[in-house]
Amino acid sequence: MRLSQFHLSTSKETPADAEVVSHQLMLRAGMIRKLAAGLYTWTPLGLRVLRKVEAVVREEMDRAGAIEMLMPSIQPRELWEETGRWQKFGGQLLKIKDRKDGEFCYGPTHEEVVTDFARAELRSYKQLPLNVYQIQTKFRDEIRPRFGVMRAREFLMKDAYSFHLGAESLAETYQAMYAAYTRIFTRLGLHFRAVNADTGAIGGSASHEFHVLADSGEDAIAFSDNGDYAANVEMAEAVSPGPRPGPTEDLREVETPTQKTCEDVAALLDIPLVRTVKSVALVGEQGFVLALVRGNHSVNEIKLAKLAGLADYRLATEAEIAENLGSEPGFLGPVKPARPITVVADRSVAAMADFVVGANRKGYHLAGVNWGRDLPEPDVVADIRNVVQGDPSPDGQGRLGIARGIEVGHVFQLGQKYAEAMKATVLDADGKAQVMHMGCYGIGVSRIVAAAIEQNHDASGIIWPAPMAPWQVAVCIINPKNDPAVVEAAVALYEQLRSAGLEVVLDDRGLRPGVMFGDIELIGIPHRVVVSGRGLEAGTYEYRGRRDTDSENLDLAALRKRLDLA
Amino acid sequence: MRLSQFHLSTSKETPADAEVVSHQLMLRAGMIRKLAAGLYTWTPLGLRVLRKVEAVVREEMDRAGAIEMLMPSIQPRELWEETGRWQKFGGQLLKIKDRKDGEFCYGPTHEEVVTDFARAELRSYKQLPLNVYQIQTKFRDEIRPRFGVMRAREFLMKDAYSFHLGAESLAETYQAMYAAYTRIFTRLGLHFRAVNADTGAIGGSASHEFHVLADSGEDAIAFSDNGDYAANVEMAEAVSPGPRPGPTEDLREVETPTQKTCEDVAALLDIPLVRTVKSVALVGEQGFVLALVRGNHSVNEIKLAKLAGLADYRLATEAEIAENLGSEPGFLGPVKPARPITVVADRSVAAMADFVVGANRKGYHLAGVNWGRDLPEPDVVADIRNVVQGDPSPDGQGRLGIARGIEVGHVFQLGQKYAEAMKATVLDADGKAQVMHMGCYGIGVSRIVAAAIEQNHDASGIIWPAPMAPWQVAVCIINPKNDPAVVEAAVALYEQLRSAGLEVVLDDRGLRPGVMFGDIELIGIPHRVVVSGRGLEAGTYEYRGRRDTDSENLDLAALRKRLDLA
Repeated sequence: MRLSQFHLSTSKETPADAEVVSHQLMLRAGMIRKLAAGLYTWTPLGLRVLRKVEAVVREEMDRAGAIEMLMPSIQPRELWEETGRWQKFGGQLLKIKDRKDGEFCYGPTHEEVVTDFARAELRSYKQLPLNVYQIQTKFRDEIRPRFGVMRAREFLMKDAYSFHLGAESLAETYQAMYAAYTRIFTRLGLHFRAVNADTGAIGGSASHEFHVLADSGEDAIAFSDNGDYAANVEMAEAVSPGPRPGPTEDLREVETPTQKTCEDVAALLDIPLVRTVKSVALVGEQGFVLALVRGNHSVNEIKLAKLAGLADYRLATEAEIAENLGSEPGFLGPVKPARPITVVADRSVAAMADFVVGANRKGYHLAGVNWGRDLPEPDVVADIRNVVQGDPSPDGQGRLGIARGIEVGHVFQLGQKYAEAMKATVLDADGKAQVMHMGCYGIGVSRIVAAAIEQNHDASGIIWPAPMAPWQVAVCIINPKNDPAVVEAAVALYEQLRSAGLEVVLDDRGLRPGVMFGDIELIGIPHRVVVSGRGLEAGTYEYRGRRDTDSENLDLAALRKRLDLA
Repeated sequence: MRLSQFHLSTSKETPADAEVVSHQLMLRAGMIRKLAAGLYTWTPLGLRVLRKVEAVVREEMDRAGAIEMLMPSIQPRELWEETGRWQKFGGQLLKIKDRKDGEFCYGPTHEEVVTDFARAELRSYKQLPLNVYQIQTKFRDEIRPRFGVMRAREFLMKDAYSFHLGAESLAETYQAMYAAYTRIFTRLGLHFRAVNADTGAIGGSASHEFHVLADSGEDAIAFSDNGDYAANVEMAEAVSPGPRPGPTEDLREVETPTQKTCEDVAALLDIPLVRTVKSVALVGEQGFVLALVRGNHSVNEIKLAKLAGLADYRLATEAEIAENLGSEPGFLGPVKPARPITVVADRSVAAMADFVVGANRKGYHLAGVNWGRDLPEPDVVADIRNVVQGDPSPDGQGRLGIARGIEVGHVFQLGQKYAEAMKATVLDADGKAQVMHMGCYGIGVSRIVAAAIEQNHDASGIIWPAPMAPWQVAVCIINPKNDPAVVEAAVALYEQLRSAGLEVVLDDRGLRPGVMFGDIELIGIPHRVVVSGRGLEAGTYEYRGRRDTDSENLDLAALRKRLDLA
C-alpha cells in the first residue's frame, strides 16, 4: 500500500474527552472516529488492525474444530421470554419495535438464538458434540459508554456455543476452547492471563476469563509468580497459614483516644499492622455477626456471602452495634460483647496470637489478645479476605502477585441452564430425550485492539505486536519530489519486501522527515526503513525497530536479516 | 473438510412458505434457517458461500482503489434530519430509542454517516478523490419480507462512497466502479447485464443497475441482441419508426357494440392489433390530455411524467372524460372531441396511417383514420411507451430482447445532493470552499447468493458456479465402515486434491450412495468423485460434473485433468 493512495489522518492533539491511553492513541492515530456515544467508525487504518485480530481468532477457532455460522443481529422477544432474560438482562438490552409493533432486541449475545437453532437442527446424540461460532456485531446499551472501543455500545465479538450430550463432553470442548484462546492471545503477541472467574451471576459450573495485562486494566488479577495459577482477586483463595503460636503477652487495655483504624492503632502502639485485627459488624439470617480480618487485609464480600446464613448479609447499623457490642464503631472487637454474638474469623486471624482488637469501649483497644484464653475460639473459621501480593499461591507454587487486566475473552460451562429453559433435547443411544449441555465462549474482538494498545505504547504512540500491526514495515522516502533515484530505490525495496511476503507500506506522501517519522511511530509500525540520497550513496538503509532507541544503517543483506527474511 | 465433522442438514421436503426456487433450495440444502420474518441465520454451509461472494467483492474493490472501512450499524437521528431522510425514507427505516431516549435507526444505507465522516476528515482537494467502502449488515424493515434472503430485512451489503472535487473526477471513479462490478459478476460466474436505470427517485446524474438474469427476476430488462445496450424496460428508449405512409382508406365509423379494448376491436374487424390506437385520458397542469399509444403497446408512466405539464399527471375521471370527449371510456379517441384538448401521440402512433380509434360515441369506433386529413397533427409527439421484444435497439445494434433480472448491484452518481445538505466541503486550489461531488455504489452480497441459485439450478438442486461453491470437489466414499482400503484411498485422494489447492469436502458420513449423491447434488458441488471398491480394483474414480448427465470412470491422471490440475 502506498500511503498517498490511503486515507491516513493523524493528529498531534490529545482529545479532551478520551480518558485512557488506548482511546487517546486510537483517535490520534486516526483508527476510529466517534459517530455518537459508544458508536465508532473504524477508519481504513483501524479496520486493518481489527481484521488482523479477526483473522487470528477465525483460524484458531477453525483449527479447534468450531464451525463458523452467522446469526442475525436482530432477535425476537419471544426467544428471550423463554429464558426470562427479556426482563432480567436489564437496561443494556436495546429493545426495538418494528413497523408492525413486533418486539425485538439488538443482540448483546446469542444464547437464545443459537439454542433455538440447535433444538431445531439437532435430533440425535450422533450429531453431538457441535461447536458453532460467529464473528458478528453486537450491541449493549451501556449506561456510560467510555474508553472508546473498550466499552463501546456497538462492538465486534466472536461468540461460540457448544452442545453436548453430557458434562464430560462439555468439559472436553471447554478445554479445547481454553487451549484455542491461549493460542489466539499468544499468536497476537499479548501478555495475558487466564483466570478462574466467579460464575455466580451467570450460572454454570466452570468459567475462565482471559485478561490482557495492563496497568490501566479494570480488573485485579492474582497470579502465581512460579506456576500457572491465576484468578480474579475476588476468586483467589487465601490459603491457611501455619499453626497458631502460643501466647507470650498478657491481655491489656491500651488507650487509643482518637485511633479508630488499624493503621492508626498500629502507629500509636508502634507495632506492625499485621498484629492488628479489623472487626466488621454484620447482620445475617441468624442475627449479629462480627467478621474478623487482619489489619492489612480486606474483607471479600463474595467469599463472605458464600458462608451459611450470610447469603444476604448487610452491614450492621450503629444502633445494632451498640446493642450487641456496647460500643461505637472504631473500637469494636470480639472480646466480651454486650450480648452473645457469632464470630467469623478469617483463617489468618484464627492463626494469630498476641493480637490487638477494639475493646468495645470508646477510646480503648485491647492488646496481647489470645484465642481460648481471652475469648472463646471463633464460631466459624473461613477464607473471607482478598488475597494480597506475596500470599502463598493456592497451588503451592510460589507466591501471588497482583496485576491489573482487561478482560478480552471468557469461557463458560453453561451446563443445562439455557437448554432446559428452551427444551433443547436430543435422543440418546437409548432413544430417550436428554437436555443438552452447553458451553459458551466469547472474545471481544474490537476490545482486543484497545487492550493491546494499553499494554504496548510509549510517549510516541502505539507499539503494535507484529501480528496486529496494520503493516509490518514502513518504507519512508526522504524528499520524494526532488530525488527520483531515491523514489526508484524505495519503490524497488518496497516491491522486494512485499514479494517476500511482508506487509509493507510505502510512505510516499512527501512530508518532512520529522512529521513522517512521527506518523509512523504514532501508528505503531514495528519496522521503519528510511531510503535517502545519503543512504543510497553509502549503499545502506536506515533501520529502526519501533522499540529501538537508535537507528542503524544496514546494507540490504543485513536489513533482510533484521526483517527475518532469508 | 470432512462432512462428518461439519454440520450439514438437508431436507427432501419443499418448505410450504417458500415461494421462489432459491428460497426453497437454500432451505432444503440447509444454507439458511429462519429466525423471524425476514431474519435468517446463515448456517455453516450457507456462510461458506456468502464468504466466497464477499471475498470476490472485497478483492475487486481493493483492486479498483477503494479503501475498506467499517461504519456502525446504528446511526443517530440528527444526521438523517440533516438530509431530511428521517421523515422521507419511509417505513423501511427501523427507528430505535436507546435507554436515554436518544433516537437512532438501524442503517439501511450509509450516505449520512459517510458524508459526516468525510466532512470531518477531508479538508483539502489534495485528499480527493477518496473512495471508501464497507461490507456490513444492513436492515430494511420491509413491509412484506419474502423470498428468503432475496428480500430479507437484515442483509449483508457492500456499500462504497466516493468523494470528488468535481463532476469529472466523479465520472472517472464511476467508470472504475462500473468496471469493478463487471469483473465481480464475471468472476462469480454469473450471467448479468448492466442496465441504465431511472434515477428519478434518488437524484443524481447517472445510474446503472447490475442484474443477474433469471426467469424469476422481479425486473424486466431490455437488451440488444447484437450489442451492449441494456436498460430497465421503464428506461429503454423506443426509437422513432420510419416515415408515415400516406392514407389509403377512407374514414368510416364502425359498430363495436361491446368492444372496448383494442384487442376486441381488432378481433371484430379482423385486423392486426398494430393497426389500432389506445387512448388514455389524463389531467395535467394545463388540463385534459389524451395520450395515444399503439394497441400492442403500453404507456410508460415515467416517460409520460417527464413531458412538460405532466410531472404530476393523473388519470381523468369519467366526468372529465364525458365533459371533454363527450363519451364514456372504451370508445375514446382524438377525432372531434367535445372540447379543445391536447393530444400527445407516441412516436409510433404519429407514424401510423389508416388506423382505428374510438369514435367518442358509445358502441362505435372510427377506422381508416389519418393524421392531417381526419384530425389535426398531434400537439406533442414523444416516446411515451414501454419497449417490446423485437423493437430496434436504441444504439442501432440489432433488436431488443426482454429478459427478467434480479438487481444485485447499483452504481449512482449522486452529485452534490448529500454533500450540499450536510455542508461537506473541501478547499480547492484557490483556497475556496467547494461542495464535494459524491458517488455511491452498492452490492447486495447476500442477495447474490439467492440470485445465483435462481439462475443456476435443476430438479436435483443447486448448481453453483465454481467460484461460489462451498467446495469445488466432493470425494464420496462408498461403504466406509466396511472397507478400510476404500477409506484410505479416498483420504489420500482428498489430501492430494487439497494440496493441489482445491477446496475439497470428504463425504465420510457413511450414508447410502443414493442419499449421499442426493445431498451432494442438492448443495450444488461442481465436481463429484466417488471412491469405491470396484473402482479401486479397476484403478479408476467415478467422476461426474454437476451439469453432466452421466458419470465417467477416470484414472488419476484423467481425473486431475478434469479438475484442471496439472
